[in-house]
Amino acid sequence: MSKKSYVIGLDLGGTNSVFGIVDKDANIVKSVSIPTAGHGTAEKYVKVCSDALKPLIEEVGGIENIKAMGIGAPNGNYYSGCIEDAPNLEWRGNIPLVKMFQESLGIPVILTNDANAAAIGEMAYGAARGMKNFIEITLGTGVGSGVVVNGQLVYGHDGFAGELGHVIVEKNGRECGCGRRGCLECYCSGTGIARSAIEKLAISRRPSSLRDILSSKLEAKDVSIAAASGDELALEILADTGRRLGEACANFAPFSSPEAFIFFGGPTKAGELLMAHVRKAYDENVLFVYKGKAKLLLSELDGASAAVLGASALGWEME
Amino acid sequence: MSKKSYVIGLDLGGTNSVFGIVDKDANIVKSVSIPTAGHGTAEKYVKVCSDALKPLIEEVGGIENIKAMGIGAPNGNYYSGCIEDAPNLEWRGNIPLVKMFQESLGIPVILTNDANAAAIGEMAYGAARGMKNFIEITLGTGVGSGVVVNGQLVYGHDGFAGELGHVIVEKNGRECGCGRRGCLECYCSGTGIARSAIEKLAISRRPSSLRDILSSKLEAKDVSIAAASGDELALEILADTGRRLGEACANFAPFSSPEAFIFFGGPTKAGELLMAHVRKAYDENVLFVYKGKAKLLLSELDGASAAVLGASALGWEME
Repeated sequence: MSKKSYVIGLDLGGTNSVFGIVDKDANIVKSVSIPTAGHGTAEKYVKVCSDALKPLIEEVGGIENIKAMGIGAPNGNYYSGCIEDAPNLEWRGNIPLVKMFQESLGIPVILTNDANAAAIGEMAYGAARGMKNFIEITLGTGVGSGVVVNGQLVYGHDGFAGELGHVIVEKNGRECGCGRRGCLECYCSGTGIARSAIEKLAISRRPSSLRDILSSKLEAKDVSIAAASGDELALEILADTGRRLGEACANFAPFSSPEAFIFFGGPTKAGELLMAHVRKAYDENVLFVYKGKAKLLLSELDGASAAVLGASALGWEME
Repeated sequence: MSKKSYVIGLDLGGTNSVFGIVDKDANIVKSVSIPTAGHGTAEKYVKVCSDALKPLIEEVGGIENIKAMGIGAPNGNYYSGCIEDAPNLEWRGNIPLVKMFQESLGIPVILTNDANAAAIGEMAYGAARGMKNFIEITLGTGVGSGVVVNGQLVYGHDGFAGELGHVIVEKNGRECGCGRRGCLECYCSGTGIARSAIEKLAISRRPSSLRDILSSKLEAKDVSIAAASGDELALEILADTGRRLGEACANFAPFSSPEAFIFFGGPTKAGELLMAHVRKAYDENVLFVYKGKAKLLLSELDGASAAVLGASALGWEME
């Protein structure tokens, strides 16, 4: 391992950019959060972030003691070091974030997308410790994924591998933000679960506490809360979501025959109300050679620090 | 590269076992074909094969001049070195073929399934030369695949990765040999194309030369021949097949973002009558980030020697 004591992890989200200075035992020893939006240009954003980081860096012994910085960001491309056309960020086109932070901080910087960072964090600190073949599925506003084969993240020839949220699971299904129809994320993201709730409220005549929430305000979290208190409609929505996820994973298994699928993100807080249906549908649909083999697990990363730790793990990986 | 001059490739098929002694320039300098079935036990099969091989080995300078033997076989497992429950072979259970040939010949032996061997052969000698990320799709009695990521074949945690023929593409679709319904291979294998022909003959009232062939005798080759002579029904069957394949590959792209999909096997002899529809459906269905990137190519492996060369390439890969 490196003689330098720390790496910096950056979880660059649509709302906030959370920086952590992380030691070799995965402790976040220093942390700062900066709004991602509102700086106008990416140059100004990098300047504001660097200015905020520098005093923290001094407190841990200066930049000589920092090995690298790892960034997890939506549409972050590992090969190009750019954020490429991220729909939820205010910067348009390709933003060479790696180059910009390298010049500003004077340390090596590495970038990947947020789901890949979660997979790397899971392998370093979470439920995938010791695993060499697994698939991380992140459920949030969208559905992301990080595919690990032989202990390495799969980036593909252009850095865009691992977009399993955009596998089409329903021909001519729901409209997706990508311009097509029926992608997994239309059903199993947080947003997708809310859409399922609205659909179910229309189809069914049964009472449900979800009927008292405006459609425009209804969130996956409301479904989980209602389900936990026994609301039958909400339980059915989670069952449908779990079935979709399990069927999809059964169709992913033939690709890389993973040891585990690991689920991360807000909607997984429903726990067994969701996961029992994922496992059932997986077992019922998977090819016989894979049956009973892959574990379907919840992430062991702490939600608040997971993305920062995942990004920081990328920093330790650098040569 | 090894100081030894040759490797042995074995293409172990349901009918014949073809052995080739292959030099470093991919020339098959000696070859022998032995019926796979009819020996009763696997032990006797290995004995007959070894006896047939030994004089050929002497002709190229003896066993000291042979680096290794690579075997491509249905249900061949890279990790265990066993053929595991192959439905088209007469041996039941797990056959430790690697161990048996190692003891009989006294050289290192390595085994994988036939589609993986084709992918390795494609990388060494065919359309995938110089590629590090591609997917080989083999169309035969079934549909097989070999997935290559970062220049390495993906075996998964148990050796069973790359069974893309058993991705379900049609819920509650055609019955598959695997016991489920709607697998890609029910539509796009040679057998699947014949099933499509029978279905089309029932649905349509249009004339077709395919109506003069017994259903039990109808093969994918008949469809290709009829299509090449302008038979409209046959052309439609190939168009449907190509569309299915293209849609399926569009759903495989998000996994590993490959540089190319390479199609191998009998049904690909229909050429552009099939491939034009594969490309069209791929372009129409793939996520925007992948559009216009992956090449959809025909294999450049010579059908007769491809499997032997693929298996032999596995031998060169050994440490």
